Amino acid sequence: MNRTDAQNLAAGLLGGTLSQEEFIAQVTRPRSADLGETTLDLDRRRRCGFPEVVFGQGKTVAALEKIFQRLLNENMAVLTTRVDAEKAASLREMFPQGVYNATARTFRIDLDDPAALPAKVGRVVVVTAGTSDLPVAEEARETLDWMGVSTAMLHDVGVAGPHRLVEKLDVFHQADAAVVAAGMEGALPSVVGGHLPCPVIAVPTSVGYGASFGGLAALLGMLNSCAANVVVVNIDAGFKAGYVAGLIAHRRAT
Amino acid sequence: MNRTDAQNLAAGLLGGTLSQEEFIAQVTRPRSADLGETTLDLDRRRRCGFPEVVFGQGKTVAALEKIFQRLLNENMAVLTTRVDAEKAASLREMFPQGVYNATARTFRIDLDDPAALPAKVGRVVVVTAGTSDLPVAEEARETLDWMGVSTAMLHDVGVAGPHRLVEKLDVFHQADAAVVAAGMEGALPSVVGGHLPCPVIAVPTSVGYGASFGGLAALLGMLNSCAANVVVVNIDAGFKAGYVAGLIAHRRAT
Amino acid sequence: MNRTDAQNLAAGLLGGTLSQEEFIAQVTRPRSADLGETTLDLDRRRRCGFPEVVFGQGKTVAALEKIFQRLLNENMAVLTTRVDAEKAASLREMFPQGVYNATARTFRIDLDDPAALPAKVGRVVVVTAGTSDLPVAEEARETLDWMGVSTAMLHDVGVAGPHRLVEKLDVFHQADAAVVAAGMEGALPSVVGGHLPCPVIAVPTSVGYGASFGGLAALLGMLNSCAANVVVVNIDAGFKAGYVAGLIAHRRAT
Amino acid sequence: MNRTDAQNLAAGLLGGTLSQEEFIAQVTRPRSADLGETTLDLDRRRRCGFPEVVFGQGKTVAALEKIFQRLLNENMAVLTTRVDAEKAASLREMFPQGVYNATARTFRIDLDDPAALPAKVGRVVVVTAGTSDLPVAEEARETLDWMGVSTAMLHDVGVAGPHRLVEKLDVFHQADAAVVAAGMEGALPSVVGGHLPCPVIAVPTSVGYGASFGGLAALLGMLNSCAANVVVVNIDAGFKAGYVAGLIAHRRAT
Amino acid sequence: MNRTDAQNLAAGLLGGTLSQEEFIAQVTRPRSADLGETTLDLDRRRRCGFPEVVFGQGKTVAALEKIFQRLLNENMAVLTTRVDAEKAASLREMFPQGVYNATARTFRIDLDDPAALPAKVGRVVVVTAGTSDLPVAEEARETLDWMGVSTAMLHDVGVAGPHRLVEKLDVFHQADAAVVAAGMEGALPSVVGGHLPCPVIAVPTSVGYGASFGGLAALLGMLNSCAANVVVVNIDAGFKAGYVAGLIAHRRAT
Amino acid sequence: MNRTDAQNLAAGLLGGTLSQEEFIAQVTRPRSADLGETTLDLDRRRRCGFPEVVFGQGKTVAALEKIFQRLLNENMAVLTTRVDAEKAASLREMFPQGVYNATARTFRIDLDDPAALPAKVGRVVVVTAGTSDLPVAEEARETLDWMGVSTAMLHDVGVAGPHRLVEKLDVFHQADAAVVAAGMEGALPSVVGGHLPCPVIAVPTSVGYGASFGGLAALLGMLNSCAANVVVVNIDAGFKAGYVAGLIAHRRAT
Amino acid sequence: MNRTDAQNLAAGLLGGTLSQEEFIAQVTRPRSADLGETTLDLDRRRRCGFPEVVFGQGKTVAALEKIFQRLLNENMAVLTTRVDAEKAASLREMFPQGVYNATARTFRIDLDDPAALPAKVGRVVVVTAGTSDLPVAEEARETLDWMGVSTAMLHDVGVAGPHRLVEKLDVFHQADAAVVAAGMEGALPSVVGGHLPCPVIAVPTSVGYGASFGGLAALLGMLNSCAANVVVVNIDAGFKAGYVAGLIAHRRAT
Amino acid sequence: MNRTDAQNLAAGLLGGTLSQEEFIAQVTRPRSADLGETTLDLDRRRRCGFPEVVFGQGKTVAALEKIFQRLLNENMAVLTTRVDAEKAASLREMFPQGVYNATARTFRIDLDDPAALPAKVGRVVVVTAGTSDLPVAEEARETLDWMGVSTAMLHDVGVAGPHRLVEKLDVFHQADAAVVAAGMEGALPSVVGGHLPCPVIAVPTSVGYGASFGGLAALLGMLNSCAANVVVVNIDAGFKAGYVAGLIAHRRAT
Repeated sequence: MNRTDAQNLAAGLLGGTLSQEEFIAQVTRPRSADLGETTLDLDRRRRCGFPEVVFGQGKTVAALEKIFQRLLNENMAVLTTRVDAEKAASLREMFPQGVYNATARTFRIDLDDPAALPAKVGRVVVVTAGTSDLPVAEEARETLDWMGVSTAMLHDVGVAGPHRLVEKLDVFHQADAAVVAAGMEGALPSVVGGHLPCPVIAVPTSVGYGASFGGLAALLGMLNSCAANVVVVNIDAGFKAGYVAGLIAHRRAT
Repeated sequence: MNRTDAQNLAAGLLGGTLSQEEFIAQVTRPRSADLGETTLDLDRRRRCGFPEVVFGQGKTVAALEKIFQRLLNENMAVLTTRVDAEKAASLREMFPQGVYNATARTFRIDLDDPAALPAKVGRVVVVTAGTSDLPVAEEARETLDWMGVSTAMLHDVGVAGPHRLVEKLDVFHQADAAVVAAGMEGALPSVVGGHLPCPVIAVPTSVGYGASFGGLAALLGMLNSCAANVVVVNIDAGFKAGYVAGLIAHRRAT
Repeated sequence: MNRTDAQNLAAGLLGGTLSQEEFIAQVTRPRSADLGETTLDLDRRRRCGFPEVVFGQGKTVAALEKIFQRLLNENMAVLTTRVDAEKAASLREMFPQGVYNATARTFRIDLDDPAALPAKVGRVVVVTAGTSDLPVAEEARETLDWMGVSTAMLHDVGVAGPHRLVEKLDVFHQADAAVVAAGMEGALPSVVGGHLPCPVIAVPTSVGYGASFGGLAALLGMLNSCAANVVVVNIDAGFKAGYVAGLIAHRRAT
Repeated sequence: MNRTDAQNLAAGLLGGTLSQEEFIAQVTRPRSADLGETTLDLDRRRRCGFPEVVFGQGKTVAALEKIFQRLLNENMAVLTTRVDAEKAASLREMFPQGVYNATARTFRIDLDDPAALPAKVGRVVVVTAGTSDLPVAEEARETLDWMGVSTAMLHDVGVAGPHRLVEKLDVFHQADAAVVAAGMEGALPSVVGGHLPCPVIAVPTSVGYGASFGGLAALLGMLNSCAANVVVVNIDAGFKAGYVAGLIAHRRAT
Repeated sequence: MNRTDAQNLAAGLLGGTLSQEEFIAQVTRPRSADLGETTLDLDRRRRCGFPEVVFGQGKTVAALEKIFQRLLNENMAVLTTRVDAEKAASLREMFPQGVYNATARTFRIDLDDPAALPAKVGRVVVVTAGTSDLPVAEEARETLDWMGVSTAMLHDVGVAGPHRLVEKLDVFHQADAAVVAAGMEGALPSVVGGHLPCPVIAVPTSVGYGASFGGLAALLGMLNSCAANVVVVNIDAGFKAGYVAGLIAHRRAT
Repeated sequence: MNRTDAQNLAAGLLGGTLSQEEFIAQVTRPRSADLGETTLDLDRRRRCGFPEVVFGQGKTVAALEKIFQRLLNENMAVLTTRVDAEKAASLREMFPQGVYNATARTFRIDLDDPAALPAKVGRVVVVTAGTSDLPVAEEARETLDWMGVSTAMLHDVGVAGPHRLVEKLDVFHQADAAVVAAGMEGALPSVVGGHLPCPVIAVPTSVGYGASFGGLAALLGMLNSCAANVVVVNIDAGFKAGYVAGLIAHRRAT
Repeated sequence: MNRTDAQNLAAGLLGGTLSQEEFIAQVTRPRSADLGETTLDLDRRRRCGFPEVVFGQGKTVAALEKIFQRLLNENMAVLTTRVDAEKAASLREMFPQGVYNATARTFRIDLDDPAALPAKVGRVVVVTAGTSDLPVAEEARETLDWMGVSTAMLHDVGVAGPHRLVEKLDVFHQADAAVVAAGMEGALPSVVGGHLPCPVIAVPTSVGYGASFGGLAALLGMLNSCAANVVVVNIDAGFKAGYVAGLIAHRRAT
Repeated sequence: MNRTDAQNLAAGLLGGTLSQEEFIAQVTRPRSADLGETTLDLDRRRRCGFPEVVFGQGKTVAALEKIFQRLLNENMAVLTTRVDAEKAASLREMFPQGVYNATARTFRIDLDDPAALPAKVGRVVVVTAGTSDLPVAEEARETLDWMGVSTAMLHDVGVAGPHRLVEKLDVFHQADAAVVAAGMEGALPSVVGGHLPCPVIAVPTSVGYGASFGGLAALLGMLNSCAANVVVVNIDAGFKAGYVAGLIAHRRAT
């Protein structure tokens, strides 16, 4: 609690605008919901700008149901990642308004009132080095869409055919950030970064074989990028790349 | 070359506003300077917004001298990283107007005319988990300063004393981005990220011993952060973290 | 054999209170049971305070049956870890009094006489960073219960929502030890450790993806914890964490 | 802040036993000291039972001086680890009452009044596998001594001469915990653990060559110990092993 | 664009042999085909000598169909690697003239007119250390065949029976390059290299168990080869080894 | 070819005891059999004392059939390792005299004439740390049996119950070598080695979980053994351990 | 020995053109020189086309002297790699005609008679990503020069300034092979490979910091290159890259 | 204690040939010497055939002096490994009869009475792949000499010049074991193993650079050897390889 908050509380209590019970409630108010094996963060939107995004992997359908219900009760739009097709089918029965993207493996429930959705802001370009990086790029795109950010997609422009990127540089015009997903040697973010004045969020993917070691080669390559504007997220973390790109786009719009 | 550029060239050539020699010059104009073992990127500022920053490690004083001279000739402010004290002393003799930060190991030469410096924009908070992370934080701060971005420093607020961060959350008010440097387990960026609505650029440092493996533990921790707004750069890469934070601050300011 | 034991033996033998045959039997007495491919440690309870806990992975149902039978014959309660559902079903047919915890994957057979069970002692808090860490936490809880130690559970209080832990710090009051299970970056034990005066047994879990490398990132993070009271066990080793926490609780109670 | 604290505060404020200024002071009281690049945790003793122990590596003598002075002002005994001989000499000039252990590389300043020192409690046995593990064992011993815990040392009883440990098992009588330091294959903690009913804190050391990889082999061995009572700390982390053993000894004594 | 190209363009435009529209078309001509999630490199043959080879892993049959159709429209022979049997069956229905090699997992569609096939040139020897390396060797052989290069196969001549290679050294007579596939310790390329005056392309295979770590041991062995003429490709990368060997054979033939 | 061989050849040729054709045959005699994708080493028994042992993994039943047939034609007993149950069933139909050990996954065909079998020689003790190491131990035992060496088995005597080994030390009396299979921390070979005057062949097994990393922890532990008489083979390489132990037993017997 | 050789020998011996002593000499002729701790390969030039190149690291000046003397006696030009400045000074005293390249760390002694040097053949382009890669490139250049191959150098054209390479593509005209040295993320060979129809020998360098892990990141990146014509050598292995490129240039020239 | 020992003790005590004091002395007799930070194993020779060999690394001269003195008092010849030149000089002053091998870094003190030395037995061949492996080979040779085993040395016969080994195969005649030291790719033990009927003890050395990773590449190569008779010791562990080879030679001789 910072000084301003404390002063306000004391003043309210003494001034009578805050009853003792209200004072206690405010100071001790739970900012999370206890759902058994889950402690939902109800305060996330206040602190971080967006509600908690649900990590679907390793959670049962029953656990997800409880979480979704509570988020919707709090008037928060639901975004869940890493949901397999079987779970998605069950969730669709419970939440018919939910939308499953089978490529991205995301499950979303937008709020009933479309008017409540924020207008699309900014511009993020999502790039893939190869066709097989598509699922990661789609996860980023879904996240950006959920955050209300405009996106443009640019696919399969890896460095083995270097002109493919150069031919399409116009797509980056006025971009707030670029998300670049690449497996194998993961060289594309460096090349993209060498052309742009905005941050590049590099996502190593597990596409490859042998000494790609499940995306480790791409990860190390991206961390060692000689381009100064490249930052990195976890292997296959399309969500996280999209999320940070979305934050950048939102900050610019404010 | 994109279509607009090509159209302009053709029109100019046919319309006579572009001589054949000028046409050839434009199309083939070198955008880099050949300095022997160095090919200086003169086009970086146009493409990426800032001049090339010089990676000082492994370069001789003679090579640096040639690079600095050429950058100054092109009216570009010099920022060099990873310069040890001995090299810095030699460079100071050649460029007395240069400033060496011994903690950050940076060498800067600002342009003669202070009026040419951009006004400070935005707000980036640079955070350390422990006192030993200072050199990395200073490298980030120098970079942000060179980019014309305002900074605030917050030191030694690692998770073993969790109240230290909470007591000082006010410092993050209106921040465009946070740079968080941490060694050992590298947990601080996640905790900072859990409090903020802006991107957190996490820098693993090589501070630690044993199973820190020169910063690998912190690096892996940060890549696996459960906070959605955390992106990562290379171990000890204070420059890169500062640079990307600076890009974000600049975009917001535009 | 230490000096006291040797003196007693010699005195007994010479004094006639120990026959030569008894002497030989004592000195050479087998303290283990040869069950073919298993050599059961019958002396474990004397040396270490608790009977041998059975590692179920890689053992056939037939081998487990022989072990269980012998332990029960020796009047020792059975705790088996890493038992899959199929094996558990077979074991339930042989030992109907056995209890299988499908989440923890443990199989227990308590002694027939409940009066033989030790009274619950001490207090250990078992904490998870996320919902997916539940199986590991349950294995720890079963172990502590088998050891006769009181437990409290605290779930899904990872660092991305840092207030969730702070809101519930009261649960740690008078705790002898905390068991903290976390995957991904494994930062929670450090934060918990920063609040407590008792040992924290950190269990990295294999929850995560990409650069979590099956729990390696969490493991390294925990080993490098900047909190002084954090010790670590193997990835997913809920049993071991519970066991050591239980030993601490028992020592305090004595 | 928990409910009890909040209730007390409100009651005090309303009842007049707490002035508004005192209320604000209490709620916003800094629990840390801002020493420039260091934020000293003044609240550590209240939360965790012992003052902050200073990690000496990477800190300048000037920074250490500021920290020591402040700790002494707060009437807290100083323990610093990883202090090399040169720094220790400088510190001795500033703090003549300080004691440097060159093997352990610790620097301690006990409080002026010996009566303030807690009486020695408990019993921890510190074991080494080989002579070269001595520095790590000494760091653990210094820590335990600073915490007011009794210690016994047992050196060079590694598994290649397995009778050496067996001959001396009596030393573990009534031990609250054992600290076992071992390099190379790190097998000793498992063997010690197989004989004892108390927790074994295993410390892998960097003693060895080739495929010991700086202690990694010992670390992995200890993490995979088949003995249930073995927990692990970082490579060469004698301090941490001693600290946790000391916590266990203290809890038992209370 | 290099100077010669630019001069030609300007001359053509001014001389009237190039219309303005043709000029724009040439300068902006797409050298790639946008097939949705794929950007096919149509310029590869001009730059690199051979059309793009399709990496089949992770691509859907639908995506492959679009790619094949376009390549054939451009009069380019199709070579696809890492095609499993199920996909191959579907592709055979669409492209009955296609040939699937189940061992190599390649799918090829040669051009309708056999006369368009280049005459076989050069000589590459493909060697395996053991019988299990056959799939990798076959992938190399298919690639060389598609490139129009003659091959000779030499199987199961690993170093445990060192005379097997020596007995058959004649097969290397006049070879342009050797491709050597080996798993386990990967020693064969060094031994082959010690006998030959031409480059040896070493392919580590994932054949082995335990500390072969999926081919890592063989990879490291080959990279550290004491034979000067050994270069290395990725684990199981029979295609790449064959391709480079084929380039060498082709250069010699020109 | 060494000097003695060369002299004999020349003498024979000139002396007429060797026809020119015989001379050529001897000098160029194939010492291997070309079976397509396999080059069988027919000379192995002459050089190394035993026929080639067949590595069954990755070989088709058809390939194995050809190899077995040829070995039997050469009057060599067949030992094949890493044969799964399905392949074994097919092989049993072709070679009804073959014996499959499902635990060891070995397939053996002894020669028809039992009199041709060598008498059992020497004494090798095969030891396991835990019950789950049985398959590796059985592979070693089958190999030793095929080599005509006597074996004794000692199971489940890992270090967590250290008396189990001590109670049975008599079994090592007059042993030529010990094979010790252990997973997890792999400490047992060191302890066994500390008691014995003969070589200990340590086999790390993939038994364990988490930070055992598929046997890596045990492997590193064994390589770093502080016992001087411990040598190591690959993870799960029961065959190799048995083979070398058998060679030692045979050398002693000669 | 192959059949042809054997036939010739037999014919010569019987036909009298080969005395028995000559026959023995030929068959047993030593093809190596025993220099104590070195066994010099005198047959290398016959088998592989070039004399043995000496690996200078870890060899004493005395050992090098013996080797050089013998090579010169055999009329072979000397090339030694990894010679530090101190050793080079001593060698220069013994072999004044030797030339030391301090950047490449090579020591060469060309044959006295320049006419014996082969005429320069072919064309290899040696490329660096950054200025710090110069030593590796120079080692490659020296090797190619020693082999009599023409070289062109292209420095500091890494991907962060992607136009630098494109501007200079003409230098690759008619190249037989390219050697590309790059540290950090090692992306340059892929980009170069995407432009060329000849083999690209990629050399990862140890240039970088943090997660470059001494060149590992670049190595993995290059092994996973999506360009089909890229092969890889060991980290910093400029010699080997130059050697293989030289073999390719020589084959083309024949 | 085994049954026979126990029976003898009881019989002696009762029969009067063993006084009660003697009985206690025997049963409790210390089999180790407590030298402060060292517990010397005095029983090693009885159990394992040879006295304890001293690991010199990390031990002070004072500690070594105490150990040497005690070993000599017990009439045991001293062998110490990993002694640097400076320590050796100090030790020579204290023990003038000691012999230091600067290449092997061993320090030996043979017993005063040469007649007490065992006669040389057996035959072990020590092989190096390259000249730089000499120190490891010398450590093995010194160990074998101290054990009284005959040795033959074969240097620099690595696989890049494969005829070098073949020319000298006669040296292995009647060998009991071969010790093969190799760095880089570590292929030589496999090739040697393919020629021999005796065990090959492979020693990976840290000779190499780049992806040799300090001997890791050689270590992995040797562990994955396709030759059945190859076992492995730690990187640079010449002592251990020599010791086990010596045990084999001794067993044969008995």
